[in-house]
Amino acid sequence: MQSFTYQNPTKIVFGKGTVSQLSSLVEPFGKTVLLVYGSGSIKRTGLYDEVMNQLQSFGANVVELSGIEPNPRLASVNRGIELCRSEGVDFILAVGGGSVLDAAKAIAAGVRYDGDVWDFFMHKATIADALPMGAILTLSATGSEMNGNSVVSNWETKQKRSFGSIHTYPRFSILDPTLTFSVPRDQTVNGIVDIMSHVFEQYFSLTTDVPLQERLCESILQTVIENAEKALDNPNDYDARANLMLCGTLALNGGLISVGMANDWASHGIEHEISAIYDIPHGAGLSIVFPNWMRYVYNERVDRFVQYAQRVWGIERGSKSDEDLALAGISATRAFFTRIGAPATLSFYDIDEEHLDVMAREAVLFGPLGNFKKLNQEDVKEILVMAL
Amino acid sequence: MQSFTYQNPTKIVFGKGTVSQLSSLVEPFGKTVLLVYGSGSIKRTGLYDEVMNQLQSFGANVVELSGIEPNPRLASVNRGIELCRSEGVDFILAVGGGSVLDAAKAIAAGVRYDGDVWDFFMHKATIADALPMGAILTLSATGSEMNGNSVVSNWETKQKRSFGSIHTYPRFSILDPTLTFSVPRDQTVNGIVDIMSHVFEQYFSLTTDVPLQERLCESILQTVIENAEKALDNPNDYDARANLMLCGTLALNGGLISVGMANDWASHGIEHEISAIYDIPHGAGLSIVFPNWMRYVYNERVDRFVQYAQRVWGIERGSKSDEDLALAGISATRAFFTRIGAPATLSFYDIDEEHLDVMAREAVLFGPLGNFKKLNQEDVKEILVMAL
Repeated sequence: MQSFTYQNPTKIVFGKGTVSQLSSLVEPFGKTVLLVYGSGSIKRTGLYDEVMNQLQSFGANVVELSGIEPNPRLASVNRGIELCRSEGVDFILAVGGGSVLDAAKAIAAGVRYDGDVWDFFMHKATIADALPMGAILTLSATGSEMNGNSVVSNWETKQKRSFGSIHTYPRFSILDPTLTFSVPRDQTVNGIVDIMSHVFEQYFSLTTDVPLQERLCESILQTVIENAEKALDNPNDYDARANLMLCGTLALNGGLISVGMANDWASHGIEHEISAIYDIPHGAGLSIVFPNWMRYVYNERVDRFVQYAQRVWGIERGSKSDEDLALAGISATRAFFTRIGAPATLSFYDIDEEHLDVMAREAVLFGPLGNFKKLNQEDVKEILVMAL
Repeated sequence: MQSFTYQNPTKIVFGKGTVSQLSSLVEPFGKTVLLVYGSGSIKRTGLYDEVMNQLQSFGANVVELSGIEPNPRLASVNRGIELCRSEGVDFILAVGGGSVLDAAKAIAAGVRYDGDVWDFFMHKATIADALPMGAILTLSATGSEMNGNSVVSNWETKQKRSFGSIHTYPRFSILDPTLTFSVPRDQTVNGIVDIMSHVFEQYFSLTTDVPLQERLCESILQTVIENAEKALDNPNDYDARANLMLCGTLALNGGLISVGMANDWASHGIEHEISAIYDIPHGAGLSIVFPNWMRYVYNERVDRFVQYAQRVWGIERGSKSDEDLALAGISATRAFFTRIGAPATLSFYDIDEEHLDVMAREAVLFGPLGNFKKLNQEDVKEILVMAL
């Protein structure tokens, strides 16, 4: 186990009807609230009205920023920063999925910074302060509700980049599983793949002697697998939705499940390059990339993939070699993604070889990707070719 | 799953040599520091000197409170409160095991309260504020390093009581596994039993549809079982000590592993009555009580005990009935406790029937104990008799 520091100040308020606690959660931060949301589905579901009632109950002055994109864009973030400054915003409330939360975090950090907020994403500056923000989550996927990470796309430069900071943890996140009942099937699927991918990035590690962390990762994977089809078959299954929501939050709550372990994050790096150019859903991109990454790297530490096959997928050894077992676990992953309806190839989105070289080059902009196996530009290109 | 709120602000600094970060962790809180510790073993190991060097490096004024008892006493807490007031203490630093941390938390809460600090333990008042405190942990056991709980004994009234508050979470806890190398065998054993017992109190629950939480609990139990004898056989085994330390912290870090579940805590309630009168080590008391509690209550929900036997102890069903399996898991628990050297009976401490009625009466002072099965005075008495 490696040495580590862990702190996660986010307050989680979980359960049906917990939006009723919103006013008491926001009021301590001030009267002027920036409400950040996406396409307007929160108006259709009635959540918008409920939020406004809560905010108006203590006389809040609500400034709205709507239309946050599924891959949130820098332009939207800059719009939010301007609004916060011109309106004297005290608190940012994000209502939506990970993209809305990520945009809100970038706004929160940008408001308290004199330079260009993109500096944080390009490693040119470090976040020293941020406006307080909180969230109401409507989609189980990114874990953004309990971490300080933000991923934003710069549509001008075709770059999708991330930052992480202790200053951008939500002060609170309201997690009501019933708010995810209306999430469409494809978004539910993408969320499931995203949650599992977050665990993969931490679980497939060269760090040894971390038996508890391995089991915590396996616990989340098993629980997601067990509940995914329940939620897809019965979108209003409270327990299935609640279990997925809790899995999504714990999968990436500041790295608790992998404390003291080297993380990988190469597959995320590769996926970000795909969606930076093609604007495909993040979860769908991960479904395409991850099993190919697994096939490309499993030889670095076959025993971890053997354990994965046995513990997560319950594959029995029988007469299988370690390699057979490892590959069986990878095949089970792809089969599961396919069964729930997640795409397997870039061609699903009509993506061909045209930009693969650009993607591979951009992916290693800050050096080789990953830790399980350090991937250089050629490696990334090979994985992308495998994914065609 | 039940609705829940979860927040845990404690910063964990984990790993060999992390005491070197102490000065930067304490300095922001002020110059006058109350250093709380126990019997003086920290002087023998050199930790005391290291701590003093760290504190003196930023010119701290150190006030000392030593001699905190293994079951920390109210008199010591009151001594600490007086010291904080007379010396104008800004920050409390606890260096030791759970008892030292618990005393420090009670002091922290008491300083900012006009009444008697014992009010908090007797549910007569609620903690509204506390001095900031931090910890250097030297014993893996109570989880006090990442929660707001405190257990204190009132030697005058023979009562051992607890409180929990968001205001008494340590601001930071330094967890260096090498600091536990010198922990004597019996204390290591007691710590192991304590860690497992904390998980039991959360795991044996009537709440259904909590598959992730069940697995998180099982993950800790399996990891403790796997590492216990390694640490006992080779006290300087870094990885075994580190794994136990992480298990101890996550077993009771504000209830993360059992969010949304009804907890039990009857066995702790019963043990507190034993050590309130006989001053035996908490972990030893739990070793005596818990398997008896299990035998007394398993019929309330046999399936949970079946799952425990199978997943935690790897007991195969074969031709066993559910009841056989449940009992086999309970027997495995007792056998493990015995194998590592934890006591099984009250008679080990020459405790006889004399005070059982008083204990049973005091245990239900605030109403029936537990949730898995609500225990009244007669139930508690029966379990105590089973434990003779």
